[in-house]
Amino acid sequence: MKSERRLSPLQAKLYHIIFEADSSTGRTFDIWLLVMILASVTTVFLESIPSLDAQYHELFYALEWIFTVFFTIEYAIRIYCALRPLKYITSFYGVIDLLSILPTYLSLLFAGSQVGAVIRVLRLLRVFRIFKLHNFLYQGDIISAALLRSRQKIAVFLYFVLLSVIVIGSFMYLIEGRGAGASQFDSIPRSIYWAIVTITTVGYGDISPTTNLGQFMAALVMIAGYAIIAVPTGIVSAELINAKRGVNPRVCPHCMKEGHEDDARCCNMCGGELVRKDGSDDFKEGLAFRRH
Amino acid sequence: MKSERRLSPLQAKLYHIIFEADSSTGRTFDIWLLVMILASVTTVFLESIPSLDAQYHELFYALEWIFTVFFTIEYAIRIYCALRPLKYITSFYGVIDLLSILPTYLSLLFAGSQVGAVIRVLRLLRVFRIFKLHNFLYQGDIISAALLRSRQKIAVFLYFVLLSVIVIGSFMYLIEGRGAGASQFDSIPRSIYWAIVTITTVGYGDISPTTNLGQFMAALVMIAGYAIIAVPTGIVSAELINAKRGVNPRVCPHCMKEGHEDDARCCNMCGGELVRKDGSDDFKEGLAFRRH
Amino acid sequence: MKSERRLSPLQAKLYHIIFEADSSTGRTFDIWLLVMILASVTTVFLESIPSLDAQYHELFYALEWIFTVFFTIEYAIRIYCALRPLKYITSFYGVIDLLSILPTYLSLLFAGSQVGAVIRVLRLLRVFRIFKLHNFLYQGDIISAALLRSRQKIAVFLYFVLLSVIVIGSFMYLIEGRGAGASQFDSIPRSIYWAIVTITTVGYGDISPTTNLGQFMAALVMIAGYAIIAVPTGIVSAELINAKRGVNPRVCPHCMKEGHEDDARCCNMCGGELVRKDGSDDFKEGLAFRRH
Amino acid sequence: MKSERRLSPLQAKLYHIIFEADSSTGRTFDIWLLVMILASVTTVFLESIPSLDAQYHELFYALEWIFTVFFTIEYAIRIYCALRPLKYITSFYGVIDLLSILPTYLSLLFAGSQVGAVIRVLRLLRVFRIFKLHNFLYQGDIISAALLRSRQKIAVFLYFVLLSVIVIGSFMYLIEGRGAGASQFDSIPRSIYWAIVTITTVGYGDISPTTNLGQFMAALVMIAGYAIIAVPTGIVSAELINAKRGVNPRVCPHCMKEGHEDDARCCNMCGGELVRKDGSDDFKEGLAFRRH
Repeated sequence: MKSERRLSPLQAKLYHIIFEADSSTGRTFDIWLLVMILASVTTVFLESIPSLDAQYHELFYALEWIFTVFFTIEYAIRIYCALRPLKYITSFYGVIDLLSILPTYLSLLFAGSQVGAVIRVLRLLRVFRIFKLHNFLYQGDIISAALLRSRQKIAVFLYFVLLSVIVIGSFMYLIEGRGAGASQFDSIPRSIYWAIVTITTVGYGDISPTTNLGQFMAALVMIAGYAIIAVPTGIVSAELINAKRGVNPRVCPHCMKEGHEDDARCCNMCGGELVRKDGSDDFKEGLAFRRH
Repeated sequence: MKSERRLSPLQAKLYHIIFEADSSTGRTFDIWLLVMILASVTTVFLESIPSLDAQYHELFYALEWIFTVFFTIEYAIRIYCALRPLKYITSFYGVIDLLSILPTYLSLLFAGSQVGAVIRVLRLLRVFRIFKLHNFLYQGDIISAALLRSRQKIAVFLYFVLLSVIVIGSFMYLIEGRGAGASQFDSIPRSIYWAIVTITTVGYGDISPTTNLGQFMAALVMIAGYAIIAVPTGIVSAELINAKRGVNPRVCPHCMKEGHEDDARCCNMCGGELVRKDGSDDFKEGLAFRRH
Repeated sequence: MKSERRLSPLQAKLYHIIFEADSSTGRTFDIWLLVMILASVTTVFLESIPSLDAQYHELFYALEWIFTVFFTIEYAIRIYCALRPLKYITSFYGVIDLLSILPTYLSLLFAGSQVGAVIRVLRLLRVFRIFKLHNFLYQGDIISAALLRSRQKIAVFLYFVLLSVIVIGSFMYLIEGRGAGASQFDSIPRSIYWAIVTITTVGYGDISPTTNLGQFMAALVMIAGYAIIAVPTGIVSAELINAKRGVNPRVCPHCMKEGHEDDARCCNMCGGELVRKDGSDDFKEGLAFRRH
Repeated sequence: MKSERRLSPLQAKLYHIIFEADSSTGRTFDIWLLVMILASVTTVFLESIPSLDAQYHELFYALEWIFTVFFTIEYAIRIYCALRPLKYITSFYGVIDLLSILPTYLSLLFAGSQVGAVIRVLRLLRVFRIFKLHNFLYQGDIISAALLRSRQKIAVFLYFVLLSVIVIGSFMYLIEGRGAGASQFDSIPRSIYWAIVTITTVGYGDISPTTNLGQFMAALVMIAGYAIIAVPTGIVSAELINAKRGVNPRVCPHCMKEGHEDDARCCNMCGGELVRKDGSDDFKEGLAFRRH
């Protein structure tokens, strides 16, 4: 609380509405904000379609300014009622909020750039803030925790895949690229691109081997990739299964150590007897409480 | 039983044949209905092939009316012998039954539309009703229960994928779309479509990056997608493994050890006798019963 | 042994060499047979390449006859020394052995057909017999047992996928097929083929949606398919994990019930105490013994 | 130590810097070596792009010689200060080190070959040596151990897939290849290539069936492949889950319960104290030690 400023009653009320979602007005605000964000992003999408832009250019232009003005006012109020305005401005969401309105103003100075349109799409990230308090975030926590725990394994795996596609791509360049000038494998980077397209089973077909030896090599790569794809899946599956196990909130009443196995009868830290699982502990409520 | 009407002996007999499958006549009826459904859908398929339709148009037309008359009679009998006719008509299967016959009659009023043909394909959904009582439905229950329990995790995952493809698609539009007029990334929605085609490893190749930077970005997306595909698989695997384990909450009355096997008679921890699974020893029948 | 005939010493010796692999001569025969099978199939492959066939037609023709004569002699000896000649001839491998030689003789009567070439490829199935006794077959047993146990779940899953692709294909036919005559979605079966290509993430790109609505629908299908692919993987993973658990050969010394859990202390059938796991029971040997 | 030669102080110091990474100088050397390797491989990549090579051929040529001279000096020092020079030269990394510099010298004798360029890419394998001591190698050990344990199952699976694609490819050659001369299924090997492209869900689309029967067959193959892809994933998942569990065979000396967690101090079944993990409490260091 030290560097936080004192809010006036108006600021406090606005803060409550904009930054929190536990009041009816706050929820209404969130819903309206969500609608505005989705509508503005949809406008960006439609504007990027040449035929629609040619026809409704004026409408899109007007809508874009309406959204920008709305978001600018919202941004100003957020600064006005934030506990620490500077910290808000430099925070992740503060930067996203600024990026949401900046391109439209800049387009007055510089001729209409597509870069601006794409930056406007980043408004979608603001949706995260709105959904922040919903309970499905808990599920996201479990997934990201599992991914986080397996990040080293996945890094090793990706490193291995990267090395493989570089070596495979280089060899395919040797096999396919030496032929006539019309070969699609005309450089090592392009051959590596092909190797990635193939090993991930995307298979565009914009580049594909034409020689017999090349097709034979490609077949080997595919079958190898077929077995390799099992690795990340296995890693994440194993983590998620263990995540489920590790979430078990059995606490030793003697030494307070958490996370005992389902069938454990004694604490594996102090040896004291654990309380029997009595079927009726409402798992979700206990967890919701911890989270609060 | 309150609002159910009293059935005459004929109605009761028809009800038994049409709505139930435990009599020999009922089973014969089911098989014939299945044959008619599959034959009528096959006719719709063949009719949609221009070359076949040109040659056998009369035959298909005749067959379609035969199937429609058959299904109309069946529909009439179903209403006639249903315990609550109105409830049947407004039920899911009642609507499907009506949709199965309506298009043919409507084609008399309006010129032959393809919409009608497609609605006729919905007859396939009626197959579900016939298979309803078969024991493999129990397996479907396990799968759908696992999916249901993991629906929040899958929703979070899909939400994350959706956001990713929108941001990726927008950036690819920026990278690839700015070039000459011939680019395939000519609007943000189309670029998002490309991102979805790529991240799901479908990879049609109808749109594919041509610039060096675009191909580099695409390679990153593919490798990311390669690791990401592990997430839903891990989620469902974990649920299915737990489904198998959690499906049987037998507890030893002597030492409170949980999770005994279906056919266990004694606790595998303390050796004490377990309580017999009461009510329905035959697990499958028990399920069929519960379902009724 | 009742209907088996008495073998002469020569027959017995041949039987030992050809049908069994535990003697040095038997193993040598197996290796030679393997070489002949692979060589003959390679010849079929090379013969099917037009450019090679044009150049080396005589050589391929000669080789084919050499292989056929060899396999004919082998077939004759197998009949000669089999315990029950008739049973051998009508067995799976007996039919495969006959199919391996028949096409070449038939080609004398009928002009060279490609059908014959393909039937010759079935010689590869004979390789199974040679590998029959190798210990990696045990691994195949575990996999096929897991697949067998999950066959109902996979059937339900495939049934659901099939229904989905039919309904999706029909709708795409409606959306894409109604346009100008050049549409690739020109019949329902072809649209279903597209739906299968898409939902399995194969994505040839020979047929791909061109309208905006069609691409939107396709994107939905892909994302759905992305989540759906997790189901069979989860099913098989769960079964394989349980297979590993179920393979546990702990036997109750009191009632001989097999397959107790790792941490079980008492038999879950009779309640008697189980023997402690003493770390040193060589798992493989025990199993090899049972198998013998 | 028997056949190892005695190093002079200079040799010992160089050995410490080049072969080990626990000194500050050693780590600086590693980083510089990494930079040189990545820079040299990037040069190879860029050199392979025709347009860049045409413009900067002289620069690439000069850079290549700089890298080669650097790696040659490094190679010479490695031989100079190795404990057993001959053993180093014939070791895996010794051969890779030699292959890293040889192509450039050979290009003086023979005209500039692309083969040399590709061999230079193998320099990337040297990166493995630098990362050798990093702690994420432990994760790689777990993955490769799981893959090693499941190698037999994966071999059986690949053998089955190989047999399937050969039989499927041959049948597709029969179905699709018999038509007019323009068919893409013009030989059995090419049809098998198609079958591999399809069953692994890569789906280039360079070869795709055009007849109705062919598309029907292809649809069956895809759906089969959809279910089949679950098998390797299930195998690896099961192994990784068991790896996690089996990696720690701690047994309680009081009640013989196995599989206690790494940080457990007491048995979670009887509460008795567990034996401390002797020798190396720090698990990672213990591993690094074993590796040495």
